[in-house]
Amino acid sequence: MNKSEVVYGIHPLIEAIQSKKTIRKLFIQKGKKQKSNVYRKLINLYQKKNIPIQIVPKQKFHQLKNKNHQGVFGILSPVVTYHIEDLLPIFYENRKNPLLLILDRITDVRNFGSIIRTAACVGTDAIIIPRKNTALIGSDSIKTSSGALFKVPICQEKNIQKTIEYLISYGLKIVSATEEKSSILWYNVDFSGPTAIILGNEENGISSKYLELSSEKAKIPSSKIKGVSSLNVSVACGIILYEVFRQRTST
Amino acid sequence: MNKSEVVYGIHPLIEAIQSKKTIRKLFIQKGKKQKSNVYRKLINLYQKKNIPIQIVPKQKFHQLKNKNHQGVFGILSPVVTYHIEDLLPIFYENRKNPLLLILDRITDVRNFGSIIRTAACVGTDAIIIPRKNTALIGSDSIKTSSGALFKVPICQEKNIQKTIEYLISYGLKIVSATEEKSSILWYNVDFSGPTAIILGNEENGISSKYLELSSEKAKIPSSKIKGVSSLNVSVACGIILYEVFRQRTST
Repeated sequence: MNKSEVVYGIHPLIEAIQSKKTIRKLFIQKGKKQKSNVYRKLINLYQKKNIPIQIVPKQKFHQLKNKNHQGVFGILSPVVTYHIEDLLPIFYENRKNPLLLILDRITDVRNFGSIIRTAACVGTDAIIIPRKNTALIGSDSIKTSSGALFKVPICQEKNIQKTIEYLISYGLKIVSATEEKSSILWYNVDFSGPTAIILGNEENGISSKYLELSSEKAKIPSSKIKGVSSLNVSVACGIILYEVFRQRTST
Repeated sequence: MNKSEVVYGIHPLIEAIQSKKTIRKLFIQKGKKQKSNVYRKLINLYQKKNIPIQIVPKQKFHQLKNKNHQGVFGILSPVVTYHIEDLLPIFYENRKNPLLLILDRITDVRNFGSIIRTAACVGTDAIIIPRKNTALIGSDSIKTSSGALFKVPICQEKNIQKTIEYLISYGLKIVSATEEKSSILWYNVDFSGPTAIILGNEENGISSKYLELSSEKAKIPSSKIKGVSSLNVSVACGIILYEVFRQRTST
């Protein structure tokens, strides 16, 4: 535990959330009675933001023993996250053609890092991930992304379905990258306009409710050699993002 | 050490090589004097095939203590490897348009496995790797390839430069996938004919002598965001192999 990544005390923890810092986890001291209004406010705020809360014994506070930690500390994420609602209007102001990526429960840290690296190379404007069931934004994903994690804005959203509906209302075409549930080959999909591409979980693919919301399902086929499973999701990501690049740059 | 992967005794080890089995390494017992002609033949054969030879103390033989190991044992590779000279004529007989992949010192096992998986999905005919400076063909690469390592023939060649020259003489177009050393974008390269694609080492890219032999250098650009290094080699592999697929299937 690096002290610089730790925030302790009730007020500083409330402030951290209010100033849009990303707290990965809140730790509460076991058995310590807290009845103040600010303590209740803290817990309410963190629950509202879906930040995991863990009750731990007093020993977990030994690094903070001379500090006025008030029985609470949180671990700061090294990466700042955003909300797409705050970014999309800026994208439209600054350029005309946003390209977004939605990661539906990508849980492998190396896949996550590799996807971010590719997204940075091709100039993706933002990556949208859910609050839960997603690879941890930590030192491993930063390493695999070759530092790209600091270069592409990451938007962590509580409800991906509502986020997709919001994107549709803003005129974005939603394209699901899939291997089976489509007959349109990926290079026959028109990526010339504002687009959000959905990539699905390594085992189960894209949730059916997101597939239903998609305007197109882009098929990246595989030769289906018996015993070989489908493409790795980070490779599929590269194929489809570079197809967008091809369509937007070739004449 | 799984006993089923071990071959011991002078004659069985000679036979293993002669029947084209792939021995990853030969182990010789330290201090044991060997002067027979068959022992010399064994060593000559293994040196000729560039198989690493290691001298180890007697204790390394404890698993074989009741066996007549004669002071030598070898570890069998679970994957059979080939020579492209044996396969290419068959490809030409069976189909008209071979697609090969040459991996120039890809050393990361996960990259290696992921490349093989993508190659299998897109129907690559064979993958050519050097004898030295390459990821080990073992349980890790088999796992990351999702079993594809058994589905695409792997050709291990002593001299990649000579192999490239051989492929050129057989009418193949050699295409290097590079990020900087070209101005031709990857989708402007014509992949319609027989093609071998070279992918380079994670750190240093493709050796200059192979770049010189290439008929085309296909550039996969990245937006060059400061602090983000280039595309991961397994992602670059997916982009270029699926461009071949696109060109060969789209009308």
